[in-house]
Amino acid sequence: MNRIPVTSPASVAVFRRILTHGPLGRVDISRATGLSQAAVTKAVTPLIGAGFVVETDDPRAAPTIGRPISPLAVARDRAHIIGIKITAERTYGVLTDLGASVLARTDEVNRSSAVDHVIEAVRAVVDTLSAASPTPVDGIGVAVSGDVDRESGIVRDSPLLGWHGVPLAHILEESIGIPTILENDVRALTTTEVLFGSGRDADSFAVVTIGTGIGCGLYLNGKVVQGAHGVAGEIGHLPLGPVDAVCSCGRRGCVEAVASTAAILNDIRAGHDDPSLTVEDAFALAHADDAVARAAFERAGGVIGSALAALVNLTGPELVVIAGENVTEYGLYEDRLRETFAEHAFGAASDCAIVLRPHVFDDWARGAAACVIEDIASGIATGR
Amino acid sequence: MNRIPVTSPASVAVFRRILTHGPLGRVDISRATGLSQAAVTKAVTPLIGAGFVVETDDPRAAPTIGRPISPLAVARDRAHIIGIKITAERTYGVLTDLGASVLARTDEVNRSSAVDHVIEAVRAVVDTLSAASPTPVDGIGVAVSGDVDRESGIVRDSPLLGWHGVPLAHILEESIGIPTILENDVRALTTTEVLFGSGRDADSFAVVTIGTGIGCGLYLNGKVVQGAHGVAGEIGHLPLGPVDAVCSCGRRGCVEAVASTAAILNDIRAGHDDPSLTVEDAFALAHADDAVARAAFERAGGVIGSALAALVNLTGPELVVIAGENVTEYGLYEDRLRETFAEHAFGAASDCAIVLRPHVFDDWARGAAACVIEDIASGIATGR
Repeated sequence: MNRIPVTSPASVAVFRRILTHGPLGRVDISRATGLSQAAVTKAVTPLIGAGFVVETDDPRAAPTIGRPISPLAVARDRAHIIGIKITAERTYGVLTDLGASVLARTDEVNRSSAVDHVIEAVRAVVDTLSAASPTPVDGIGVAVSGDVDRESGIVRDSPLLGWHGVPLAHILEESIGIPTILENDVRALTTTEVLFGSGRDADSFAVVTIGTGIGCGLYLNGKVVQGAHGVAGEIGHLPLGPVDAVCSCGRRGCVEAVASTAAILNDIRAGHDDPSLTVEDAFALAHADDAVARAAFERAGGVIGSALAALVNLTGPELVVIAGENVTEYGLYEDRLRETFAEHAFGAASDCAIVLRPHVFDDWARGAAACVIEDIASGIATGR
Repeated sequence: MNRIPVTSPASVAVFRRILTHGPLGRVDISRATGLSQAAVTKAVTPLIGAGFVVETDDPRAAPTIGRPISPLAVARDRAHIIGIKITAERTYGVLTDLGASVLARTDEVNRSSAVDHVIEAVRAVVDTLSAASPTPVDGIGVAVSGDVDRESGIVRDSPLLGWHGVPLAHILEESIGIPTILENDVRALTTTEVLFGSGRDADSFAVVTIGTGIGCGLYLNGKVVQGAHGVAGEIGHLPLGPVDAVCSCGRRGCVEAVASTAAILNDIRAGHDDPSLTVEDAFALAHADDAVARAAFERAGGVIGSALAALVNLTGPELVVIAGENVTEYGLYEDRLRETFAEHAFGAASDCAIVLRPHVFDDWARGAAACVIEDIASGIATGR
């Protein structure tokens, strides 16, 4: 497997700094990692030798002190990764380089959400993207919603797919022959933020995704929280909604039962007694100040605001990043969301910044690729 | 300041292993830390030299393989620590050794909860316990409920004390002349579990305290979660109760507004139209199957169960330890608690074990001492 050579813990720290903040001068790496400049040079030499780091003359990398000589950058074309996001209807894929830049994308309709049909779609996505890759693909990352065990590569319980106990990473590795890792989709998105987004400079943060489902990735004490039993970040299933709201998971009073796209749509369909209304209709009605639609979005915003307060009161992140498909319509519920958040945030928890991250659907697949990059950067072999 | 000499990261790891799991043979330390036996010996030599570690012939320390020679233990009498818990009415203190064994205890009535009166009580407690200490006291740890910043030593907001922005650690250090650290009381209790309790062998866990307040300490990714803004673990202020329940913090629908000792008592007083009922009366009524009292405890158990589900769904700990004053009456609400927990725990989150930890009030003060021990063991100077 293609991963950085690890000669010491310093080489992992130096590579990570270059990956997340490069191009960088040696002085800046030394300052950020606490290593001496000699230790940085010692750590970086095998990384250059193995082709993962290059000396560059990028002007952005001019060191803040000293002469602007040979800043260091990640050799982006040293590895190519496929990231995949599976939904019940469709399989999305992106090809990225080692810096998580998207070089190509594609998607395939699943014949059904049955495991065999999804694997068929994944194979087609991988074929298309492999053909677009300048070098043989180094690893595949797959993002699935629900209870997913990254270590064993098993989808334990994915209600949206209707899957239970599917050893997906193993099946794909056998079938495709490329090292494959599996991760919960929201934790995958969080990994993108850790390496390439808001998390690069934050000690702790949460990513909350609002859309078909409502999920959360938590970065605390230097790592994404995995959940000892495979479950963590299930903000969509906090019992903060009314008891008469039945969730797709079968429980009562979940946040998702009020605030998922489907729940909002159902509310508006019921209010207008028109089951033919589409999601686009729902957004259009709300923007046209239709009282039923406005109320449905306000109700969703209220319960999401309470959920954010619960999240922040419990885990105290530095900031919360809002992402997901529904952020394009964030304006429809933001006021009510911030109002209930302020109402229930405890003490200084209300200082926690809530920021919006523009989101495209392919970001889910890119997050899966970021998980593979994380493994490459840790010197850990990807795959089982 | 009296702390372990740190010659390398290995010395911190080796001392911590001996502190939490000793007495231990060198082979077992080597296996647990991943260090070679030569590296263990190199790390332990300065610890023995400085008197923090001793060679012992404790039979419990017989190594699992190899000859039972010179197992290593922490020199318990190498340091003495005072741990203090401040409540509005009273100040509690314990004197402990380096292994957190309680050697002496005392408490003082506060003339009022005003800062000056509490400092008076703390001084009296410290005088009594210093007189009982075999060696000069090395450090003082102080536990206070609410929003407490350990790093700056400031009580930012403690509703139960009515304090805002009190630089308590600094005041006490000036007044007493012993290095002092301040910590949130629930995080302090969690630190005891990390070093000397359930957390010694768990990768992640939560401590939930039930009593005057309802709090939570979280140990995730190798550390107690501090909260970027000083707030974390505020499970008592999750908005899971009915909106008509007004909390002592002024917010509506908090868990504490239904499930704190005072809230339960108020419910029972209202139901019996008898404001003179005491906490002991309330417990006695519930044990005698009084319908009003049973209903109040059931209601509390229900909302605590939802709160535990929220906690576990979000943060996914390996286990939850229940502690606090009210655990002696845990039987009055346990069934309902487990029922609502099971109802709202998402997927494999329901595998999270909920265990009861017998609790005495002095455990709060012992937790504050454990925070000082943690600093001594990290080689970090205690105090500002």
